[in-house]
Amino acid sequence: MLERRLPLLEPLAPDALDAIERGWQRLVAEIGIRFDHPEALRLLAAAGQRVEGDVVRFDPDWVLEMVAKAPRRFTLHARNPARDIEIGGDHMVFLPVQGPPFVRRGAERREATLADFEDLCRLAQAVGVLDSAGSLPCEPNDRPLDSRHLDCLRALVTLTDKPFGGHSVSIACVEDALAVARIVFGDRVDREACTYTNINVNSPLVYDERMLDALLVFARAGQPVLVVPFLLMGAMAPVSVPAALAQQFAEALTGIALMQLVRPGCPAVLGSFLSTTDMKNGSPAFGGPESHVGLLASGQLARRYGLPWRAGGGALTSSPLPDAQAAWEGMNTMQAAFLAGANWHMHCAGWLEGGLVASFEKAIVDIDMLETLIREFTPLEVDEASLAFDAHAEVGHGGHFFGAAHTMERFRDCFHRPVLATTDNFQRWSKDGSPDAAERATAIHRQLLADFEPPPLDEAVRDEVDAFADRRRRELGD
Amino acid sequence: MLERRLPLLEPLAPDALDAIERGWQRLVAEIGIRFDHPEALRLLAAAGQRVEGDVVRFDPDWVLEMVAKAPRRFTLHARNPARDIEIGGDHMVFLPVQGPPFVRRGAERREATLADFEDLCRLAQAVGVLDSAGSLPCEPNDRPLDSRHLDCLRALVTLTDKPFGGHSVSIACVEDALAVARIVFGDRVDREACTYTNINVNSPLVYDERMLDALLVFARAGQPVLVVPFLLMGAMAPVSVPAALAQQFAEALTGIALMQLVRPGCPAVLGSFLSTTDMKNGSPAFGGPESHVGLLASGQLARRYGLPWRAGGGALTSSPLPDAQAAWEGMNTMQAAFLAGANWHMHCAGWLEGGLVASFEKAIVDIDMLETLIREFTPLEVDEASLAFDAHAEVGHGGHFFGAAHTMERFRDCFHRPVLATTDNFQRWSKDGSPDAAERATAIHRQLLADFEPPPLDEAVRDEVDAFADRRRRELGD
Repeated sequence: MLERRLPLLEPLAPDALDAIERGWQRLVAEIGIRFDHPEALRLLAAAGQRVEGDVVRFDPDWVLEMVAKAPRRFTLHARNPARDIEIGGDHMVFLPVQGPPFVRRGAERREATLADFEDLCRLAQAVGVLDSAGSLPCEPNDRPLDSRHLDCLRALVTLTDKPFGGHSVSIACVEDALAVARIVFGDRVDREACTYTNINVNSPLVYDERMLDALLVFARAGQPVLVVPFLLMGAMAPVSVPAALAQQFAEALTGIALMQLVRPGCPAVLGSFLSTTDMKNGSPAFGGPESHVGLLASGQLARRYGLPWRAGGGALTSSPLPDAQAAWEGMNTMQAAFLAGANWHMHCAGWLEGGLVASFEKAIVDIDMLETLIREFTPLEVDEASLAFDAHAEVGHGGHFFGAAHTMERFRDCFHRPVLATTDNFQRWSKDGSPDAAERATAIHRQLLADFEPPPLDEAVRDEVDAFADRRRRELGD
Repeated sequence: MLERRLPLLEPLAPDALDAIERGWQRLVAEIGIRFDHPEALRLLAAAGQRVEGDVVRFDPDWVLEMVAKAPRRFTLHARNPARDIEIGGDHMVFLPVQGPPFVRRGAERREATLADFEDLCRLAQAVGVLDSAGSLPCEPNDRPLDSRHLDCLRALVTLTDKPFGGHSVSIACVEDALAVARIVFGDRVDREACTYTNINVNSPLVYDERMLDALLVFARAGQPVLVVPFLLMGAMAPVSVPAALAQQFAEALTGIALMQLVRPGCPAVLGSFLSTTDMKNGSPAFGGPESHVGLLASGQLARRYGLPWRAGGGALTSSPLPDAQAAWEGMNTMQAAFLAGANWHMHCAGWLEGGLVASFEKAIVDIDMLETLIREFTPLEVDEASLAFDAHAEVGHGGHFFGAAHTMERFRDCFHRPVLATTDNFQRWSKDGSPDAAERATAIHRQLLADFEPPPLDEAVRDEVDAFADRRRRELGD
């Protein structure tokens, strides 16, 4: 977790923000949002919004009035209180990639398994700059579909002591996540944010039944929901960044308004995920300039509404390998999210191949980038001592500072020390077998996993989670 | 060339800038700068600065008074007027790597030759976002040491029609660069900036004889000099960013003051090049957070003095391969230089292995990054049309925008199109042989070189350059 103390980059002028604001207001008022969920329609009609069939046309002022009930910031609790994280304000939290059906480990690319899921939990636990393993760092395809979320919850709770989420793919998933949170946190769940879920809008302008189930279950429980339009311009949004931003806010704000209708004050995170479609082949494209601009604008407008907000990226890339493309596209998106002041940074370790693949090597590359960004977004302290006049007086003209007293006192921690990047000269690097960054990353994640020690967990809690999972697996027929 | 219209990132508060300013003023006044050049010492003594032996202690107010004579901005001319570039203000220009003794082309790493130099000129000419090939995109080691600068000048003038520089390694180099500029530009050289040179301070706090020769020759000719402290903290500067910044300004501003003493109003560019030493092995380290912070601060302070300024990076990295490390370190430094509003961006294509290697593959990676950055630093236009309400009205709820009229009208140029980054799906990419970004870059630079056509050049100018080079080679004994 980082507390941002550097200025934001805010490229849009107030009148441009006004135009985008008018844009989302016109969308919700004139075209409206489709809600594939009778209860949501009933609630919104009762609140005075215009419901025709399954489409709701909104009074934008009502939307803003509801959104204003969401907290400006909140604490998301971990079972280890030292791992609690603050969401909103100037706080920034970082999570690894979420959702990939495949993994890449070295040269091997294959369907992800529960063992991979567990290893990604171990990495998220071991790496200090990651605040949570999330809810689904990869899909455990070797476990039965209906009950695999129980394997996930068990791994998240036993292998990490950081905050954990519940995947939103079914009502069983979200209800079981709440049940596990109740085992871990007891009745604190009734008063505090102890888990979260992330829902994606079925863009353009549709909330489907599963997402609304998850939203309603979590909102009723007072647990945070990240409401995230996933917009690839050209596919789910027009080929124009301002239009996509208007759509993003139309979708996210109406979902958050529904949450506040269900339970005023329920924590909500406004989501942004804006990228492009490659118009040559129809494939999703990540890491480009449109995402960068979209992130900066998303931050500016999110701050108008005072909501904590999530940046889509993260170290996004379309690259199929943890190579130069993967690294710079990832850096480009991650840097934009920092400059935009995003509160919740998803997909900060391991995202590869447009999010289809969790790459262990890319995770190490990303962690190196993330640690660098955190260091460079930490303000520089400038005072008389930092000017080191005495060092200059000692070294004089044309000397060197290697042996200066000022250097000797500080050399251990004066500079950032990367985990992956090498400065070895050509001779030394050749002698070591000329490994590229991805090859070195393999050795690093293997070592991290070999050194892993699970965080302490109360035996009674572990037993109760296991018993719950066993019971639910039987109920679900697996 | 880009005209920056986005806000700058300025993390330092005015009092922090004041402290750094007091820092450089104390250095020049109390420790002083050593000038290994009798004429420079004579000039500075005559101007009332305190000279003891070869060390000059300065009145900081005098330094600022001299620096104020340098132009806020100037035009650097090209032999093709369409290629003229503006230096200073909100203008940003981009050059490839300068100075590497080695090249890497695919798997081959070896000493650079004139053929490599010529190919790098061809790339710099062919790629629109590069504003000049500079003076020395690599060292042509297969040519005689004393006269190889003539081969370089000939290549720069015949293979590019963009501005060219003269290397500052010897007085013959800079004088011959001026002579070639006179052949190309005639007596415009007496009134306009038609070439440039870059000098590095022999840090800490020393200008050596060769650099001062170059500075004095170019200043007398009224041609621009980039005055660049090359500071690796821990080696040539203290292990503290504020101390290194104070040193950078002490060194650069006194050099520029000397230029203005020789010829008031001579164009000057304030240089910054701030990186670290890896304190584990003593190697230079590039692309890290300290350079990022140093660049932002350099921009803030350079603007206090109104000088055009050069960012050291560029796409800097310590990596020995064009891999993930090379790409993200390069992106990190290049992005910082953009955010800092640098006017002159050196080393934006091909820098590898701490600047020892010009990599043709890295050049293509860097160009992809540079084109992306230029696009994302181009302001977003937000107006009613950009909100594309009609596209939403056409597509409605849950549809897609691939075939929408709004998309069909714009799909060709609505998004940035990278030269290198791929969005191919796994199946398609595997069928194409699973090439990583570096392998794809090989094909791209080969194609660029195969397609190259030299820009038109007046036969008389070519003949005169050739005759001059032949005569000078004989005079130099080669």
